[in-house]
Amino acid sequence: MTATNRQITLAARPVGLPKETDFRLIESPMPEPAPGEILVRSLFLSVDPYMRARMGEGPNYADPVGIGDVMVGEVVGEVVESNNPRFSEGTLVAGLLGWQEYAVTDGSDLRPVLTGEAPISTALHVLGMAGLTAYVGLLDICQAREGDTVVVSAAAGAVGSIVGQIARIHGCRVIGIAGSDSKVEFIVKELGFDGGFNYKTTEHYTRRLAELCPDGIDVYFDNVGGSITDAVFPLLRLGARIGICGQISQYNLEKPELGPRLLAYLIIKRARIQGFLVTDHFDRYPQATAELGAWMASGRLKVREQIADGLEKAPAAFIGMLQGANTGKQLVRIAEHE
Amino acid sequence: MTATNRQITLAARPVGLPKETDFRLIESPMPEPAPGEILVRSLFLSVDPYMRARMGEGPNYADPVGIGDVMVGEVVGEVVESNNPRFSEGTLVAGLLGWQEYAVTDGSDLRPVLTGEAPISTALHVLGMAGLTAYVGLLDICQAREGDTVVVSAAAGAVGSIVGQIARIHGCRVIGIAGSDSKVEFIVKELGFDGGFNYKTTEHYTRRLAELCPDGIDVYFDNVGGSITDAVFPLLRLGARIGICGQISQYNLEKPELGPRLLAYLIIKRARIQGFLVTDHFDRYPQATAELGAWMASGRLKVREQIADGLEKAPAAFIGMLQGANTGKQLVRIAEHE
Repeated sequence: MTATNRQITLAARPVGLPKETDFRLIESPMPEPAPGEILVRSLFLSVDPYMRARMGEGPNYADPVGIGDVMVGEVVGEVVESNNPRFSEGTLVAGLLGWQEYAVTDGSDLRPVLTGEAPISTALHVLGMAGLTAYVGLLDICQAREGDTVVVSAAAGAVGSIVGQIARIHGCRVIGIAGSDSKVEFIVKELGFDGGFNYKTTEHYTRRLAELCPDGIDVYFDNVGGSITDAVFPLLRLGARIGICGQISQYNLEKPELGPRLLAYLIIKRARIQGFLVTDHFDRYPQATAELGAWMASGRLKVREQIADGLEKAPAAFIGMLQGANTGKQLVRIAEHE
Repeated sequence: MTATNRQITLAARPVGLPKETDFRLIESPMPEPAPGEILVRSLFLSVDPYMRARMGEGPNYADPVGIGDVMVGEVVGEVVESNNPRFSEGTLVAGLLGWQEYAVTDGSDLRPVLTGEAPISTALHVLGMAGLTAYVGLLDICQAREGDTVVVSAAAGAVGSIVGQIARIHGCRVIGIAGSDSKVEFIVKELGFDGGFNYKTTEHYTRRLAELCPDGIDVYFDNVGGSITDAVFPLLRLGARIGICGQISQYNLEKPELGPRLLAYLIIKRARIQGFLVTDHFDRYPQATAELGAWMASGRLKVREQIADGLEKAPAAFIGMLQGANTGKQLVRIAEHE
């Protein structure tokens, strides 16, 4: 065990797309758990779109990360020292422990890692927040039902790839929108989506969607926003449901962009838009992870990970994820699990 | 009884705000009811924003009115000839009988006029579609609850003025947005709204709304769209509900306008937008009209009518309503009730 703790802090509030210089790698003294606390060694860190919003000072659902503070992030780790009878050494835990090699916590904000036969890293995606986001967003918020046509944006990403597969399992027809031909191939050939297109090489999104969804769209699960989302509205079916999970196309804009006004479509189609945050739905973890775990074990739900090695790679992995460099879940391995 | 039937037909699809020349007043032979049919003499015609959409060819919830066809519109009238045992002569009925003095129908699309002590014209607003729209939109769609802050646009209009009063009766705090100082005075002093402002003389809508809604906005009932609606989003409270009833600011644009992208606010605030059409909610007529009628009888719900006299005045009344010339419900009197 090293005597120091490497951490990545927020060095500057990004303008537009974050740069590596917006982060700083520092070495701090190894934290020591007080009575009732535990020391957790990080194994994997998840990098996610929501972090971009937390780096800024705009209106948000949580306070921004302070300049000089450790970046916020979910980690799966191992208890290496315990002054808390609830946690024995060697226990695996997950929680918002930040971009750092070690963290001290009283454990109240941790959840157990119940990955069974699956790799422990899945606690950070399919059996973690991404999986819960997809499950709750598609089934509770969008109320996808058998026979629905479901469209999902960022379809090859951590959440979108799970959304599409849950929809298939529930008997929906699923179309994914992604940012490269290889991502489209991945979601259609590997994950079993009914179709998809590469928005970077497609000129008329609505026209392409109309070809892929000849009966219109019942459910749209939105991770992206912007012109991709605009394209969905003319194709909504009566009673359509739109779940707003993320708006990644908007997070790095230096100036807010304008778009067409879309609300009149909602009247014509008696359609609903609902924004949601997974943190409101943690009570659904047990059912969601039980179902997702079973689908994964039976091979009906496939996951792909993209892993960067070493805490120092976290900023680059995060910036790449914001640009769509990843297919499937982007993780950072901070230490090997012995 | 005249031997001819005066009708107003659609002469041309309007570009931008309709002009009187987009309508044509024609004289047709008096229609004769076949077996099973009735002849209805129109007493009042309602002019409403939805008619503008039906004059165009854009995507809509119903087919456009054809060139040369009688304009669509709701009428309250009197049965003057009956070949249908369900209707006796002299019965008052309401339904989509169009902009004309007489109509023949089998009666299947009519509803009874149950205005009690109230004027029969109220069957076309507070005890008709406007009242049902306000009732269902506020209570079912927006789920307004005691203590909520409710904002309503087009607040002095037929629907908005009822929305605000129902909200007050349900213990909400209500702020109205309207297009003249006298309308604001009307909703605050006569109807009991907690506040309001004239959007035509207010520079910063969001700032003014923030003053009037210091705790934020729980419910927004939208008749207008455009920049008025944009202004609401930054002030939404957690779990806010927006009902999209109309988008009158957009109906007469020759070119669709752009606006700020607003969906990210929905995530932060876990807010919902629901479009709705009153025609889906006719099953709520009995309860809505019973409650609205009782509130009106007890003086808790006030209505104001603005009446144009004569079928030939319908185009001007309609065009004026689209421009906000009316306070309260705009009607056209087609014949006196004897």
